[in-house]
Amino acid sequence: MNLSFRRFVRPVAVLALLCSAAVVLAAPRSAPTAPSDEAAVRKVLDDQAVAWNHGDVDAFLTGYWNSEQTVFAGSQGFTRGWQGVHDRYRKSYPDRKAMGTLTFSNLEVTMFCHDAALALGHWHLDREAGPLGGVFSLVLRKFPEGWRIIADHTSVVAEASPARVQ
Amino acid sequence: MNLSFRRFVRPVAVLALLCSAAVVLAAPRSAPTAPSDEAAVRKVLDDQAVAWNHGDVDAFLTGYWNSEQTVFAGSQGFTRGWQGVHDRYRKSYPDRKAMGTLTFSNLEVTMFCHDAALALGHWHLDREAGPLGGVFSLVLRKFPEGWRIIADHTSVVAEASPARVQ
Repeated sequence: MNLSFRRFVRPVAVLALLCSAAVVLAAPRSAPTAPSDEAAVRKVLDDQAVAWNHGDVDAFLTGYWNSEQTVFAGSQGFTRGWQGVHDRYRKSYPDRKAMGTLTFSNLEVTMFCHDAALALGHWHLDREAGPLGGVFSLVLRKFPEGWRIIADHTSVVAEASPARVQ
Repeated sequence: MNLSFRRFVRPVAVLALLCSAAVVLAAPRSAPTAPSDEAAVRKVLDDQAVAWNHGDVDAFLTGYWNSEQTVFAGSQGFTRGWQGVHDRYRKSYPDRKAMGTLTFSNLEVTMFCHDAALALGHWHLDREAGPLGGVFSLVLRKFPEGWRIIADHTSVVAEASPARVQ
């Protein structure tokens, strides 16, 4: 091998290697996210169910982004802001008895990029006033404090027709 | 300056510069998206309303990702797959009269990364059977053919209480 060529090739190879490393370090911002991110999203929901079933609405609500921009959609339209969601839950579920027992099931998590995910699933509430359940679509984003729900769209689905809940 | 130091510094400076360029080239994949992306997302919805009001359900449905994974959520639970959504719309809206006139309003688009967005808004249908309206949360992704809805969660909101539709 020609020496001058080797003198050229070696720095270029090192440069390419180091630049590849730099690109790899930058890439996770949009590359397929690590399984731990999906696990972290699922844990938000798991923790919410545990909090609910301990009668702890405040702990349940830590799963939501504590912001005026957090949005909750359903048959009442849009409720905006973490405080609004908090007030809504406090009003609808004033005590442990009203809260009943919450179960999430068939959770599907789709990661968009390093800091955004969609979680689809079913929810079911067993309570004295009768069971209640349906489906939810949650958009979560990753904040320094962890994954938080920024948009929650929840529907009640008639329990009389389980075939409808696919 | 010591010559051996200069021989060390110059390649490092060049390396840093080139690596920075590599990082910058990689970064737009997750950087804030161009206004044109938000405009393109809004156009999907605008085109859907136009198609609907021309009685063209098929054109309306081109706004959705043509995939088995496309999901539609609401008071019936989940319907999966573009074909399922198509059949649902064909059944619910068999003709122009049943379709009425569709209006989307208060559309808010949040871009997550270069290829994912959340669109929130209100829908209103004027038809002979009486008006119908509510809210929707749409997750869209950017495909080679353009932005398409991959997840649609829609709720009917009682029209009797406009104050609820904030």
